[in-house]
Amino acid sequence: MTTNEKTTMIEQWGLFELALKGTSQGNPFLEVEFSATFHQGDKSIRTTGFYDGGGTYRVRFMPGSQGVWRYQTASNLPELNGIEGSFTCIAPGPDNHGPVRVANPYHFAYADGTPYLPVGTTCYVWNLQGEPLESQTLETLKKSPFNKIRFCVFPKRYAYNQNDPAIYPFPGEVKRDPSEKFVIGLTQAPPPDYWDFSRFVPEYFQHLEQRIADLQVLGIEADLILFHPYDFGAWGFDRMPAEVNDRYLKYVVARFSAYRNLWWSFANEYELLRDRTTEDWDRYFQLVQAEDSYNHLRSVHNIKVFYDHTKPWVTHSSVQHGDVAKTITWLKQYRKPVVVDECGYEGDINQQWGNLTPQEMVNRFWLGFANGGHVGHGETYWNEEEVLWWSKGGVLKGESVARIAFLRQIIEAVPAPGLEPLNKARFEDIVTMEEVMEMFAFRNETANLLGTWASHVPAAGHNGTDYFLLYFGNHQPVYHEFDLTGSFRIDIIDTWEMTISCFAESVTGPVRVSLPRKPYIAIRLQRPA
Amino acid sequence: MTTNEKTTMIEQWGLFELALKGTSQGNPFLEVEFSATFHQGDKSIRTTGFYDGGGTYRVRFMPGSQGVWRYQTASNLPELNGIEGSFTCIAPGPDNHGPVRVANPYHFAYADGTPYLPVGTTCYVWNLQGEPLESQTLETLKKSPFNKIRFCVFPKRYAYNQNDPAIYPFPGEVKRDPSEKFVIGLTQAPPPDYWDFSRFVPEYFQHLEQRIADLQVLGIEADLILFHPYDFGAWGFDRMPAEVNDRYLKYVVARFSAYRNLWWSFANEYELLRDRTTEDWDRYFQLVQAEDSYNHLRSVHNIKVFYDHTKPWVTHSSVQHGDVAKTITWLKQYRKPVVVDECGYEGDINQQWGNLTPQEMVNRFWLGFANGGHVGHGETYWNEEEVLWWSKGGVLKGESVARIAFLRQIIEAVPAPGLEPLNKARFEDIVTMEEVMEMFAFRNETANLLGTWASHVPAAGHNGTDYFLLYFGNHQPVYHEFDLTGSFRIDIIDTWEMTISCFAESVTGPVRVSLPRKPYIAIRLQRPA
Repeated sequence: MTTNEKTTMIEQWGLFELALKGTSQGNPFLEVEFSATFHQGDKSIRTTGFYDGGGTYRVRFMPGSQGVWRYQTASNLPELNGIEGSFTCIAPGPDNHGPVRVANPYHFAYADGTPYLPVGTTCYVWNLQGEPLESQTLETLKKSPFNKIRFCVFPKRYAYNQNDPAIYPFPGEVKRDPSEKFVIGLTQAPPPDYWDFSRFVPEYFQHLEQRIADLQVLGIEADLILFHPYDFGAWGFDRMPAEVNDRYLKYVVARFSAYRNLWWSFANEYELLRDRTTEDWDRYFQLVQAEDSYNHLRSVHNIKVFYDHTKPWVTHSSVQHGDVAKTITWLKQYRKPVVVDECGYEGDINQQWGNLTPQEMVNRFWLGFANGGHVGHGETYWNEEEVLWWSKGGVLKGESVARIAFLRQIIEAVPAPGLEPLNKARFEDIVTMEEVMEMFAFRNETANLLGTWASHVPAAGHNGTDYFLLYFGNHQPVYHEFDLTGSFRIDIIDTWEMTISCFAESVTGPVRVSLPRKPYIAIRLQRPA
Repeated sequence: MTTNEKTTMIEQWGLFELALKGTSQGNPFLEVEFSATFHQGDKSIRTTGFYDGGGTYRVRFMPGSQGVWRYQTASNLPELNGIEGSFTCIAPGPDNHGPVRVANPYHFAYADGTPYLPVGTTCYVWNLQGEPLESQTLETLKKSPFNKIRFCVFPKRYAYNQNDPAIYPFPGEVKRDPSEKFVIGLTQAPPPDYWDFSRFVPEYFQHLEQRIADLQVLGIEADLILFHPYDFGAWGFDRMPAEVNDRYLKYVVARFSAYRNLWWSFANEYELLRDRTTEDWDRYFQLVQAEDSYNHLRSVHNIKVFYDHTKPWVTHSSVQHGDVAKTITWLKQYRKPVVVDECGYEGDINQQWGNLTPQEMVNRFWLGFANGGHVGHGETYWNEEEVLWWSKGGVLKGESVARIAFLRQIIEAVPAPGLEPLNKARFEDIVTMEEVMEMFAFRNETANLLGTWASHVPAAGHNGTDYFLLYFGNHQPVYHEFDLTGSFRIDIIDTWEMTISCFAESVTGPVRVSLPRKPYIAIRLQRPA
């Protein structure tokens, strides 16, 4: 038995899907095994299918190379077994560069080699707000500088998050006395308190993958958070049985991994999932790594105690930390790209992590990038409706976004592969006597010539020779001195006012650059054209 | 043999001095032993005298109790031996509260029990600048909010410090080829390169003690820095033989310890004195502790690696650190008062430690005090003359000083003994999984009711019940919520604009305090009058 041999055209890194009808009897989620193997030349890739409800079974595939691909299904259901077919993988469209990979080794690039610089934001459960808010969020993102967004599979209960989603990932029933007020502050009928964890609700996941596809159209990576602790007894999705967690992971990999703009974030603030051990997290990583045919990026976000990002299944360090200048330390510690996905949010709520001034939000972006890392945004302006961007999306009200767009322009103009820290270490992070001695013995010719190490100025460069960025943060020097080897063009960047002024078209040797006595100034050095 | 029995009157904690003539032959600094023992009732205090040049020997005493004190000298010089006399110690003058002691145990008080709140500044070698600059510095201090100043015994060679003092602490000779340019940037004749470390130059120390006395008149504590590394081969006072270091310490104790406004700071950035071991520092502390009859405050200032302030001879933690909010951690670690003597300086030079905005300088003051500590000031505005307050004194140009005066008023109005941190720990300093778990298990009723722990707001209180200060730093919340037990008056303090506005004369229970959406705001809660 074969499917229609009429040639299907799928662009490289596009999504091929085979949908088949089968039984809806029993529990297909538990009982049906279904997969397909895709062949091209020597290549053979097996991917797992999934049950999508109503007797429909799907298997998806993201081709990584052009040309004809042939496939054959395998299943314990006879009607899903042994189906063969093929499609032709054609050149990618102009905005399709493939999935993002680690490169060089502290940066990212799309599969086609185009550099990718993550400039992310966070809207934890924007995808569970229904219309018209979800469409409004997409409209806002379309006009924003953001090319990555962190959000959750599961709903969230927390301050400013008292609403329930329209549907849930599992079938549920209310078995308690429905008058019981078990969640403080809940303003609507309480959600189910009994879940059938042996089945998924396909519509829940269909909606989520529609949102992943919507983001793909906008060129935005979906940094999908698989677990989070912000449940507090509302639903119990933070404390499911171990085998349900594993089955859930396999299901989302089967459904979502063929979307090229997908990243796996194993948790938000993983330490707060207090019943999980380090071995659990290790197993989740390994399970997803084994099931995901495309090796999408994988990391996990902390509240305080970093997961060991040196482990081989971690592709990059996803960090929560308010002190982004530590990026230089994390780069050296983990030897992987650093994305400070959470460093605090521009806003005005009554939590110190959610009431940064726009100046400080932008300052943290510059500090992170000028230390060779990447920083993520969020926004938490209080409003009566409790629609805060950080969790529900909507519109952006802050002043940092325009400055982040300005920063993105500047950093994207850095020659590939991008910036790496120039100084040996962060002065503030030195803690042992040995490091103090090493600090004074340090002779990095470039850092010395640029005057960054002695003056403790964060700085990053490209290849150590042809491009440098120094960022003075909330400090206000009136001058900085260089002793340049070779000629450089020097620009002074006001990161808040978003201006770039040329100090010198071409200078060499000792030079004192006068600076305005104000915070948020950067100096850029480039080889003259 | 006795001195004139005519009654000398010395106020309590004043300075009694007995000057005697003796030989100037040989080397009196090495060869003459001279001391006096002072008696009152059961009390007997032996103090060491010193040679002051020109055949004059002096011994000094600071009486700690009123009434008649009798003394008797002892010496290996017959003309200095066995001299007896007495004086009457009378009540202290109105501005004389005695030396400062540790109290309660995280605060300070004068010997008469008056609370002392250190609000310090730094002028490392103001005392070696000659006239008219030294007098100008004293004039500036007189009008300033500062009641402590850190400065050095030895001269300093560093950026913006290329001038030599008029005289040196030891007799010296130029033995090298005088045309040799051995110090880069030196603009005058090079100083001696050979020192007779067996003798002191009394005039050098006479001048220094005049400055200590000048500060005493202004009510300013002299936090005297005994060693520092900023010599770089200019004079070699950072690398003297071990026995010279010890003799020097004994000499300064003999000369200066009877000044009530004296603190001992064993070093500035002690780790950079690279030939010293921890045992050396221990010995210096113990030596001074043994020689100083008055137990003046003792600490040592770091660049990166704190000396172990738990050691019994350390009275308080003198800290250099840019992140003053760690005060809460140091208080718990060392169980002694914390004085962040150096957290960076308001200014605009090309070093990140010396180009803080005035806003950030004030912010660090508030963060330190609102965490139960004390913070010191400095100023480094660049000028062609290279007279920067931080090192040479002169005039203050910055905008932080007026705000520090405003802060001092507020903190001095806190009931004795002062503020202690309210929260269990600093959220940002939590690093282990155990601490994360402890953080979430923490139930400090007061911190919970004040909403500080959950929201990560630094806060300190008096006795945990009747006075609280919350400081939001460079954050911009639009509200903060309390659930007050008992009635409180609530004031909103704009620490930069220096305004205090009453939110409520008396409130209790749950209250939402609206705040202006701007940084540098504090909330003060007090029991209503």
